[in-house]
Amino acid sequence: MTRIVKDPAERRLELIEAAESLFAKKGYEDTAVSEIVKKVKVGQGTFYHYFKSKEDILEAVAKKVVAPYVEDVRNIAKGNEGPATKVNSILNGILKANDSDLGIMKLMHQKGNHLLHQKVEKALEEGMSPIVTEILSKGIAEGVFKTEYPDESFGFLIASTLYLSHNFSWDHESRERMHTALEDITSRVLGVTDYRFHLEI
Amino acid sequence: MTRIVKDPAERRLELIEAAESLFAKKGYEDTAVSEIVKKVKVGQGTFYHYFKSKEDILEAVAKKVVAPYVEDVRNIAKGNEGPATKVNSILNGILKANDSDLGIMKLMHQKGNHLLHQKVEKALEEGMSPIVTEILSKGIAEGVFKTEYPDESFGFLIASTLYLSHNFSWDHESRERMHTALEDITSRVLGVTDYRFHLEI
Repeated sequence: MTRIVKDPAERRLELIEAAESLFAKKGYEDTAVSEIVKKVKVGQGTFYHYFKSKEDILEAVAKKVVAPYVEDVRNIAKGNEGPATKVNSILNGILKANDSDLGIMKLMHQKGNHLLHQKVEKALEEGMSPIVTEILSKGIAEGVFKTEYPDESFGFLIASTLYLSHNFSWDHESRERMHTALEDITSRVLGVTDYRFHLEI
Repeated sequence: MTRIVKDPAERRLELIEAAESLFAKKGYEDTAVSEIVKKVKVGQGTFYHYFKSKEDILEAVAKKVVAPYVEDVRNIAKGNEGPATKVNSILNGILKANDSDLGIMKLMHQKGNHLLHQKVEKALEEGMSPIVTEILSKGIAEGVFKTEYPDESFGFLIASTLYLSHNFSWDHESRERMHTALEDITSRVLGVTDYRFHLEI
């Protein structure tokens, strides 16, 4: 049998995808490195060539799952819309992602994936921060936003949006009211007077 | 040997305290009802006389650990200070509780206690909401706060405060800046112009 030598980047991705699928099924805590390598059909040595530890591959999984969200924000930033419209789109993106039953949410709410949840939030923040900072600086320069604390304000808005969207049990009416409240709060926090935020229910 | 018949409220509390101590040591997931009853030296039947399930006693533990915090808020509400000063004290209380190494924090960050974390947040919200709503209504009536969304705004401020205090890794300077930002944001969100919030580092 010929031994297939894989491209290192490809092999690394294979390991990450195997880990992701096991973490989604069994949770991070109950997944052993031996199970990850078994799934990819390589030895433990190969694993430790790419990753220092199980926690190290967890961070890689977190970065992989947040990548499309960071990409969405990057695309919003590239557009021709004004800074307030861009902020509006980013907040709607967060609300939509949190509402969905997609992979990332399933993964994060799987039993034993509390640490992954933390790593995902960190990876999201690290990926999005520089892009968002640029949008906010531009908005302040243009006089659309009036605040001395743009980054902190945006951090607070994201935290609150996540807090809002975690309250799954709300009925439609409460959600609608919360969204209206968040539109008002966003205007106040960023000091916006000439733009009306609109969050989708 | 004489069988000691305990007062039902006392027995119930004993079970809650045993569960709390086991959840703190081993985590909720890895604690069995059989271990709780063994610690109190009663039979399983006694447990099920007081609680429907392990999740039921988890809720009782959550209510017990949040009780002193709800009591603090109740005492703040009773004081003679103005509504803005009261809000300021409540936010400082949250910051201080999150910073501490006390029982509740240890309990919540113990592996396997993700569900307890959720129950604690729910119990805090349920306990504090009616008290806070009264403070906010008074502040709006007196013209100290200007907002159409008092409850939502306060939820937003609490989420933001928790978000802030979860970033343990920050150095003193970043924390100071974040506190100043939060003071500014609180004024904006509640529409306060005649009071300067002051959060302790």
